[in-house]
Amino acid sequence: MDQIPKAVFERMMSTDYFSQWMNIEGLEHREGYARIRMEVRKEMLNGFGIVHGGITFSLADSALAFASNSYNVLSVTLDGFITYPNPGKMGDILTAEATETSANRKTATYDVKVTNQEQKEIGLYRATVYRTKRTVLDE
Amino acid sequence: MDQIPKAVFERMMSTDYFSQWMNIEGLEHREGYARIRMEVRKEMLNGFGIVHGGITFSLADSALAFASNSYNVLSVTLDGFITYPNPGKMGDILTAEATETSANRKTATYDVKVTNQEQKEIGLYRATVYRTKRTVLDE
Amino acid sequence: MDQIPKAVFERMMSTDYFSQWMNIEGLEHREGYARIRMEVRKEMLNGFGIVHGGITFSLADSALAFASNSYNVLSVTLDGFITYPNPGKMGDILTAEATETSANRKTATYDVKVTNQEQKEIGLYRATVYRTKRTVLDE
Amino acid sequence: MDQIPKAVFERMMSTDYFSQWMNIEGLEHREGYARIRMEVRKEMLNGFGIVHGGITFSLADSALAFASNSYNVLSVTLDGFITYPNPGKMGDILTAEATETSANRKTATYDVKVTNQEQKEIGLYRATVYRTKRTVLDE
Repeated sequence: MDQIPKAVFERMMSTDYFSQWMNIEGLEHREGYARIRMEVRKEMLNGFGIVHGGITFSLADSALAFASNSYNVLSVTLDGFITYPNPGKMGDILTAEATETSANRKTATYDVKVTNQEQKEIGLYRATVYRTKRTVLDE
Repeated sequence: MDQIPKAVFERMMSTDYFSQWMNIEGLEHREGYARIRMEVRKEMLNGFGIVHGGITFSLADSALAFASNSYNVLSVTLDGFITYPNPGKMGDILTAEATETSANRKTATYDVKVTNQEQKEIGLYRATVYRTKRTVLDE
Repeated sequence: MDQIPKAVFERMMSTDYFSQWMNIEGLEHREGYARIRMEVRKEMLNGFGIVHGGITFSLADSALAFASNSYNVLSVTLDGFITYPNPGKMGDILTAEATETSANRKTATYDVKVTNQEQKEIGLYRATVYRTKRTVLDE
Repeated sequence: MDQIPKAVFERMMSTDYFSQWMNIEGLEHREGYARIRMEVRKEMLNGFGIVHGGITFSLADSALAFASNSYNVLSVTLDGFITYPNPGKMGDILTAEATETSANRKTATYDVKVTNQEQKEIGLYRATVYRTKRTVLDE
């Protein structure tokens, strides 16, 4: 059942004011997996007229957060590595897909791929999270 | 003279709409170095009530951009690694300081430290840039 | 034709004394791709009786070097990020497969996967290289 | 007292066959800190006649292991990021110094700097470890 991953996403999103500002839309929510989407607006550009690296990262980081908390175990990001295969542009529809690539009892690693509407890779993010003993949803 | 680093910062900032949204303020601009500052607002928080990891990253990434373009040689980020020593909070004044740690003819590596008003480390970012043949300022 | 990737591998391997010490065997060589293999010996273990992280990294790094130099354009590693999904053990046959995930004119990013004889992931390495103007093979 | 860090180093080193092969020498051992040294031999070179990236990494990774286990709490590396400011050469005396930059109850981040005999930076490594519930030394 994917009710818990979806409920976790909705609970997190309801107070995730920055993801709200990015106007993130949830597309798919499963255990250890999330796919989300947003459109690039003018206030997301950097001084060279392309998507600010921080926006690509933020979208990826939100996807990571939804995927890694999907078990209703509150997880925090320890660190992450991002590369930028291609620049994003104004008006692009960016999709971020986060997949769990390995997991131990207390930590897990995720790969997040950010692509545009033409399936071109805009960002590749790999990050490690730590699973706390708390839940996301109220008991 | 630090006129060029400052002019590059102002030129970039004038069209860096996301850094404008973050309300970034330039504090110090030298060759291979930048120090900038911003205040954490409500729309920068994530679903757990702390600063969204993407915001800490974005501030660090902007500092990197200002430092690595300070020679008036247009530079692009290849990749970067971020860790989060401590969570940032609503109302925090975050400062990002970017320092060049090594440079070859075509690439350079920077360390960026993000600290709050109590000098507590909120983010540590290390990134590599590629120097193009273009300038930032008009001839 | 895969003659050049193979010739580059043989040329590099002939003076790559550390890859020789690891007893690396070439399995497949194409443009932007390499697959190599080695067996874990006792002197590759760390103080906890498992494969030293540096050995897993070194195998991945050699695969990266063979893949990124396969065009006969001398390439140097700028930086890389490694994660360790599972520990490697004495006697394991480790295979490293390096794939080019993105490339611009002067830089490229590779993903390297290190697996054991049971296809279990032992290391995941992602690295960025810079392409110089030199060749690997003599003219 | 630095008796425990030193005892941990000696215990680990006694079965760390790869660090023995590298001929690593312990210079300084404190809680959350280690400084070690080795000399570059011919079998540590890569196909371009410089130090194999895996050797620089391995030295850094050993320093990390000694520093992060120094509390007599068995710690495992989750991931790490390495950059190569300058190439190492045959005969170089490389020193690796590992410092704890942040620590929570269950994870910690370390910076490791690898320098040669002229204090030139050969490698910069940043890594995150997870602290298990086991000890290194026998009770």
